[in-house]
Formats: sequence, structure tokens, C-alpha cells
Amino acid sequence: MIMAKNNAGEEVQNKQVILRDYVNGYPRESDLYTRTNSIKLQVPQGSNGVLVKNLYLSCDPVMHFLMRKTEFRMSGYNYYVPGSPINGYGVAKVVDSGHPNFSAGNLVWGATGWEEYSHIQNPEKLFKIHHTDVPLSYYTGILGMPGITAYAGIFEVGSVKKGECVFISAASGAVGQLAGQFAKLLGCYVVGSAGSQEKVDLLKNKLGFDNAFNYKEEPDLDAALKRYFPEGIDFYLEQVGGKMFDAVLLNMKVHGRVAICGMISQYNIPEPEALKNLMHIAFKRLNIKGFTHRDHHHLYPKILETVVPLIREKKVVYVEDIVERLENGPAALVGLFTGRNFGKQVVAVAHN
Amino acid sequence: MIMAKNNAGEEVQNKQVILRDYVNGYPRESDLYTRTNSIKLQVPQGSNGVLVKNLYLSCDPVMHFLMRKTEFRMSGYNYYVPGSPINGYGVAKVVDSGHPNFSAGNLVWGATGWEEYSHIQNPEKLFKIHHTDVPLSYYTGILGMPGITAYAGIFEVGSVKKGECVFISAASGAVGQLAGQFAKLLGCYVVGSAGSQEKVDLLKNKLGFDNAFNYKEEPDLDAALKRYFPEGIDFYLEQVGGKMFDAVLLNMKVHGRVAICGMISQYNIPEPEALKNLMHIAFKRLNIKGFTHRDHHHLYPKILETVVPLIREKKVVYVEDIVERLENGPAALVGLFTGRNFGKQVVAVAHN
Repeated sequence: MIMAKNNAGEEVQNKQVILRDYVNGYPRESDLYTRTNSIKLQVPQGSNGVLVKNLYLSCDPVMHFLMRKTEFRMSGYNYYVPGSPINGYGVAKVVDSGHPNFSAGNLVWGATGWEEYSHIQNPEKLFKIHHTDVPLSYYTGILGMPGITAYAGIFEVGSVKKGECVFISAASGAVGQLAGQFAKLLGCYVVGSAGSQEKVDLLKNKLGFDNAFNYKEEPDLDAALKRYFPEGIDFYLEQVGGKMFDAVLLNMKVHGRVAICGMISQYNIPEPEALKNLMHIAFKRLNIKGFTHRDHHHLYPKILETVVPLIREKKVVYVEDIVERLENGPAALVGLFTGRNFGKQVVAVAHN
Repeated sequence: MIMAKNNAGEEVQNKQVILRDYVNGYPRESDLYTRTNSIKLQVPQGSNGVLVKNLYLSCDPVMHFLMRKTEFRMSGYNYYVPGSPINGYGVAKVVDSGHPNFSAGNLVWGATGWEEYSHIQNPEKLFKIHHTDVPLSYYTGILGMPGITAYAGIFEVGSVKKGECVFISAASGAVGQLAGQFAKLLGCYVVGSAGSQEKVDLLKNKLGFDNAFNYKEEPDLDAALKRYFPEGIDFYLEQVGGKMFDAVLLNMKVHGRVAICGMISQYNIPEPEALKNLMHIAFKRLNIKGFTHRDHHHLYPKILETVVPLIREKKVVYVEDIVERLENGPAALVGLFTGRNFGKQVVAVAHN
């Protein structure tokens, strides 16, 4: 058994990232601050939770919603409370356990706090990490929630088939880079959009996309899509919304499919953009499915079985943007909404 | 064999409804005019078409698109040409035939011209009418294209099941009134929206909807839907778009389904309304399918088998708004876009 660095029972300092107040519009770094508390590295008496040391924290677009004060609340999420630490997905090491399935030294991934140590009251939902010959941070990405999302989007929700024309927006991001590589492995023609030349180069040269374009340099997204998809798009993985979605609707093939797991361009603007082409859903008899990884966790064993060998054989690569130290977490998180990240954005709180 | 009233070969006057010029925004009566030509009641030598006398013409929302000069053209439609007669679905009687499957006296429904007599060059796509103990005008509605749409929407695209909560917009229209009755026959809770108190009364008192509301008198469509669907909507048949679609997205159940066959509120406005709630497609993992009757014509024999007995046994009723004479066609057609019609809008050119 790997020994945890800290001893269970010890009282230690615990740095935390706190929400200052509910966020309107773009989140700014100043909406978050760090403070230091102390924590006893022990699950409270009678608790069947676990006390974990957080190693890698995942920056995810959905976190923007959790910062807002909204009437509509998605079930299954812990909305943030001003004055309290924010939460998200992360990789952690068990320091103390009140749960029979977990013991000190276990590596896990799942929902945790943005802090150095967290007491997780319902550890049943954590995934135990068994494969440690891959970077542990991958469990915030290719082997974590974005991996489930990409796998489900391509293989289950999209039922993508060999030879199809696939378009991926936010293609260099946590989900997009994987979804594109999965579609390539299936034998599809795959084009991605991203927000910088550097990201476009990454897609074309390192991730094996057939083509890619910088949406910020395309005055006419419809024309850009027609250039890359003269015959139209069979499957679109939608992550951005707004103008891009509108242009895609014009360029879908009859009976094309769209899988929507996000619309990041629409999260921060006071009024969403008007879409002109929704009627094409009917004209072209499109099938549009919203989905989240949450409905596909049952696929995880199959995903591990498929993807771990692909990583080992270097048939799939995964680009991460890791910032060191929890104090740099707020900047990394808000950078997600301006596309500052290059690949999957991770915060390394500790490496072991 | 029923003898046609006119004799094949005779030269007769042929009144036609002509498109004056391409339409922008709301079609007006003045965008159309009638003129009279003459026509020989005979298929041209060597043609394997049919010469028909038009009896009932169908006013359909899609006709608005055919009046426009647009770059995007749906396949399978004959876009209108200024100076020429418009076309649509209708019921007609064969006067002369150059096609082995048709002979004088046959009753048919399908695509025809807005004129007294039409030469239909590809009669293969016409449906022959065999059941004549129901009103012939029904073949523009419950037993025609809107019938296929409603049947496909509820039974195929929507896979609606007993006990589900179903919302139908444009519920007293050609498709909505039927879709609601089909859902009631399945054992669903069904609520419809319409644009006048008279239509709401029709839905509740004659068509058997569980409830109905006048969307024009609801300042807050979200609140209205929450009133009728406190637990949310399982299936929505979308025909109107805009504000209603946006409010529905807020009120769908998780994994709810939407079938879109039209968005009539958006056809005439210069800029489509901005939808605020598209993210709910992802939040609630909705499945949204565009569809048209055109993909479901193979269901027609089954529809006849199911629906004709329902009509005979008065288990389904069908409300038509029939105007007499082709000259009144333009007003009837443009009235569709302001909701002037009460039930399925039909133009009776002749009754036999």
C-alpha cells in the first residue's frame, strides 16, 4: 500500500478557492479568492466519507453555471455558495476513510472541492484509479469526465460511422481533441474549429484532424463550412452554440445528427444570439440530441478498456494545459471562457 | 366508372392563381392574382401524365417558403415563379390520362396546381382515393399530408406512449388537432395552445384535449406551461417556434422529446427571435427531431387502415375551414399566417 504523505489525524493548513459573490456575465479572476483554513486529516467520527488530498483539479465550462444565481438548477450539481469553496472534478488521494470500499493511499477521481484537502461525504460516486502508468492528470481529461463525454458523443449519442463527415467545434479543448481522434480512428473525415492558429496547427499536425480552421478569422462561418464540407456534415459535435451552430444548421446533410454537450459561446453574454436557421432542423430532418457524461458512466469500464491501450500505443494523444498551484486556479478557470487554455485545462494542487 | 363532367378533349376556361412577385415578409392577398386561360382537357400526345379537374386545394404553411426568392431550396418542392400558377396539395378528378395506372373518373390527391384544371406530368406520386364515404376534402387534411404528419409525429418520430404529458402548439390547425386526438387515443395527458378563445373552446369541448390555452393572452408562456405541466412535458409537437419554443425548452422533462415539423411564427419576421434556452437541450438531454411527412409516405396504407375506421366511428373528428371558389384562395392562403383559419384551411374549387 502506498503511504499517504500526511498522516491521518494530523491537523494541517488547507488552502481553498472561494466564490466571492454570484457571477453575472464573464467570470473574472476577482470573483474568486483563496483563503487558508485548517483541517484535521481524519473523517469525522461516524462518517462513512473519505478525507482526500487533492492532486489535480479540472477546469470545466459547466463551472460557469454553478457560479451564477439562477432559478433553474440542473440536478446532480453542487451550485457554488458565496463564501464557500467551489467544487468540480479532480484526482485525489485518500488520506483517511470511513468507507469500506476505500482506504488510505487509494487514488480516486470524481467530484471534489477546490482546496488542498476535502472531506467527501458520499464517496460511492468516486472512481478508483487502477492504471497508474499514464499521467494521473489524465483522470481529469481523457480518462475522466471529458473522456466519457467524447466517447459517448461519438460512439453512442452520435453513432458515428466510418466514412462520415464530422465537424467538431472547440476542437482542441478537453472533449473536442478526443472526439476528433475517435472519429478519425473510425475512418471519418474530420474537421475542427478552434480559436487560434496555434490550436489549428495542433489539430492538423499533432491530433490528426483532416483539416481545421480558426473561427475568429472567418468573417463568414457558412462559407468556411462550405469550403471544408462541400457535401455537407453528417455529424456535428456542438460545444459552442451561437453563430457557429447557426452556420452548421445551414451545412448539415439531410438526416444529419448533432450532439450537444455545451454552448460555451453563449454562457457569458447578456442576451443569447438569435439563430436564423432553426427551421433547417425541420427542412433537413435533423436529429439533435443533448447529452452529458452523467448518463454514460456505465460506459466507463469499456472506455478504460478501449482508451488505455490507445494511450499506451500512442494511437491517441492528449494535450493538457497544466498550471501549478491552487493559487493559480482562478486565473486558469476564468481563462477557459476566453479560450486562453491550450488543450485540457488542469490545476495541479500537488503531484502526489 | 364515374364519368367526368367535362369531356376529354373539350377546350375550356381555366382560372389560375398566379404569384405576382417574390414575397418578402408576410404574404399579402395582393401578392397573388387570378387570371383565366384556356386549356384542352386532354393530355398532350405522348405524355404519360394526367389531366385533372381540381376539386379541393390545401393551404399549407410551407407555401410561404415557396413564394420567396431564397438561396436555400428544399428538395422535392416546386418553388413558385412570378407570373405562373402556384402549386400545392389538392384533391382532383382525372379527366384524361396518358398513364396506365389512371383513367378518367379516378379520384386522386397529391401535388397539383392552383387552377381549375392541371396537367400533372408525373402522376406516379399521386395517391388514388378509394374511400369515398368520407368527405373528399379530408384528403387535403386528416387523410392527406397533415394526417401523415400528425400520425408520423405522434407514433413514429415522437414514439409517444400511454400516460405521457404531451403539448401541441398550433393545436387547432390541420396537424395539431389530429396529433392531439391521436395522443388522447394513446392515453396521454394532452394540452394545446391556439390563438383565440374560440379555438381554445374547440380544443377542450370538441377535440377532447385535457386543456388548452390562448397563447396571445399569456404574458408569460413559461408560467402558462408550468400551470398546465407542473411535472414537465414528455413530448412537444413543435409547429410555431420563437417564444413558444423557448418557453417549452424550460418546461421539458429530462430526456424529453421534441418533434419539429414547422415554426410558423418565424416565417414572416425579418429577424428570427433570439432563443435564450437552447442550453436546456444539453441540460435536459433532450432529443429534438425535425421531420416532414415526405419521409413517412410508406405509412400511408397503415394510416388509412387506422384512421378511416376512427372517422367512421366518430372517434376522431376533423375541423375544416372551407372557402368556396378559387378566387377566394389567395385570402384563405394568406389568412393562414395570421391564424384567420379555424381548423384545416381548404379551398373548394369544385365539389365534383
